[in-house]
Order: sequence, then C-alpha cells, then structure tokens
Amino acid sequence: MLAVIVLFDRFTALDAVGPYDVLSSLPGAEVVFAAHQPGPVANEKGTLRLMADAALADVPAPDVIVVPGGPGQHAHMDDQGLLGWLRTADARSAWTTSVCTGSLLLASAGLLRGRRATTHWLALDELAGLGAVPATGRVVTDGKYMTAAGVSAGLDMALVLAGKLAGDAVAQSVQLALEYDPQPPYQAGSPATAPQAIADALRARRDQILT
Amino acid sequence: MLAVIVLFDRFTALDAVGPYDVLSSLPGAEVVFAAHQPGPVANEKGTLRLMADAALADVPAPDVIVVPGGPGQHAHMDDQGLLGWLRTADARSAWTTSVCTGSLLLASAGLLRGRRATTHWLALDELAGLGAVPATGRVVTDGKYMTAAGVSAGLDMALVLAGKLAGDAVAQSVQLALEYDPQPPYQAGSPATAPQAIADALRARRDQILT
Repeated sequence: MLAVIVLFDRFTALDAVGPYDVLSSLPGAEVVFAAHQPGPVANEKGTLRLMADAALADVPAPDVIVVPGGPGQHAHMDDQGLLGWLRTADARSAWTTSVCTGSLLLASAGLLRGRRATTHWLALDELAGLGAVPATGRVVTDGKYMTAAGVSAGLDMALVLAGKLAGDAVAQSVQLALEYDPQPPYQAGSPATAPQAIADALRARRDQILT
Repeated sequence: MLAVIVLFDRFTALDAVGPYDVLSSLPGAEVVFAAHQPGPVANEKGTLRLMADAALADVPAPDVIVVPGGPGQHAHMDDQGLLGWLRTADARSAWTTSVCTGSLLLASAGLLRGRRATTHWLALDELAGLGAVPATGRVVTDGKYMTAAGVSAGLDMALVLAGKLAGDAVAQSVQLALEYDPQPPYQAGSPATAPQAIADALRARRDQILT
C-alpha cells in the first residue's frame, strides 16, 4: 500500500503528520511525502519544515492520497499542476482523502462535485461554493472519498481509514501504540462546545486564519 | 516565550508536531526545532524528516523545553551533550516537558528524580528504573515538570501548558482553531480500554516498539 501525502507551502503540519503516524504504522504501508519538487516545505508559520522526499510526478499512482490543509491551499486552488496530479492520481486511487481545508483542493480539482464532504468548521461555506455537499461530521465518507474536519481530525480519519485498509484489530493496535486516548483539558474543540465568545472571535478572524 | 523542541534521530513525529502546532499558535510564541546540528532529522521509520533550524548550543535558555519520544531516545540516554544541554536549559526554564518516552531522557539527565512523571504505557517500568515516580495520568505535572503519556498525549499536554502560559481563553481558542474535538473510531487508546489480546500483543513486542 502506497500512500502519498501532498505537501505545499504554508500547509498545517499536524494535518499531515497525524495521518502519517497512523498510516505508516500499518503493515506493508509505504508513506511518502511529495510536493512539486523534493526538498523542504515550510508550514504556514514558517517555523516548521518537513522534507518532501518525492516529486508528485514520481508518484503518480498511490493507493491512498492524503491532502492536508493549511492557509497555503488557497494559493493552489488554481495550480493546474497540482490539480491535474490530483485528478490523475484519483483516477486510480483506492482512497482519496483530505484533512481540514485540504478538501478545498480536492473540490477545486472537481473531485467532490455533489459528494458529501467536510473541512475546517470555518470553511464549510467555501467548500459548498466549490460544488461539494458540506457535512459537519468529524470524518465524512462518500464512496472512496474520505474528508476530515479541521487539523486534529486527521488522526480520527486516519484510524477510520486504517480500519478499512487493514481491519479493526490492526487499527486498534495502532491506536493503542500511539496511546490515542484523548483527554483535552477543555470542552472547546468544536463551535458547538466552545464558549460562544471564543467561536465568534475566530469567526471574526476567519480570513486571517484560513488564508 | 521561546519554546525549544528537541529533535534526535528516530524520534516520533507526532510527539513533536502535536505540541508544536499548539504552542506555535500562542501569541508571542517562538517555537524552534533544535538538534545537535541544524538540518534534517529522520523519524523512527526513516520516511519523515523534519528540519532542525537551530543547534542546541544556539538556544541554551528556552522558556519551555519539549522533549519528544521515539525509539531513538534509547541511543541518547547516555549522550552527555544532549543530557548536559537538558540540565543547563532546565536550570533556567519555566517549564520542562516531555511526550511519550521523552521523559526517559529527562530522567536520564537526572531531572525527574523523585518526581511524579509519565511516559508511554509500555515504558512506565523503565521510567521508574531511572528514579522517577511513575504515574499513569495522561498529563502529569510535578512543579514545573510536565510529562505526557504516549505520542498523541502531547496534544493534551500542550493544551494544558497553553492554559498555564496564556490563560484558559487563549488555550480554548487554540483548541477550537485546531478543531480538537477528538472522536476516535475505537475505544482502544489505553491498555485499560483496548481489547486485552491487542494490549498483550503489543506488550510482547515491547522491545521492538520502544527501541
């Protein structure tokens, strides 16, 4: 099983690394970070750089595609090289997935037209504008398309995907090895549970957060 | 606020990147990945490389120290350069923290003697052998020492730390921006909740997993 995680400038690191650490733990899995060119790719804050080990052109037919999100995705929504790669790879993939605003890239490539999909809670309207049917689940599956909500939801998505790829027992073993028994100190992880004022403040800063 | 995340060969990526994405979201925070030498540092699987932007010697006095875990930590438990840096940095830090088996490095540096601390559930005995008082909490705080359980627990720890550093409202805002509303598909994240056979199988492979 070959999984390719697509990197681009100003991606969000956890979107990529959460799924990486789950999928790379599956028996027989090969997980490759790929970008237009191999080399270091900086996140949206510019203080984290992850190496892309392959050019996208060198990995045209992964079994699993993972597209992380991050403010940088907006600069790639008309990047025909990237969108073309996504369409070609998707034509042969077993699973095409995204985390956070990565789904805006899948939608920009035309892959989510009429499909139920999710994204960061601040980007659901934008996803709808690109032809997807926005859904608010943490992990939304429509056929072979699996999309996750914001950033940390990539962990949950990758475990769901691990179960599909390798069975429940293997996925549970990976969860236990990663000790994924989450206990956040606050009830603030979704707009439904966070204090209203905190959600409103993020809504007011939506453009700065997402772009 | 300067936070230094210590990288070493064969670290576990999520241990480092979970806390990174939380702490780097705090107003005024500077988060630097540092290793003996600047440059790419490979994880335990060899298929992820994160750039260290600083040499440890260049960042001797961080406010917050974060030590991730990973199988590679065993090769550094008598690395006097690293342990010496930890002791010197700890003498001035506001918080000295670890994720997963990173606490074995803190303990090897003598920083957890007689202190309550935690680590990956498979490494609690080893932590005890290094002079710490092992505790099974997800995030364990003893004075300025904050240690997290395995891998994904770094996210929970970083949010607890964010609350201490910047207040509850800021930490909640970060949690909401990262949409950290975890919904794992299985109840298998701790040895108490995972199917017994799965926990036993990991126990039997303990040495391969941790080293």
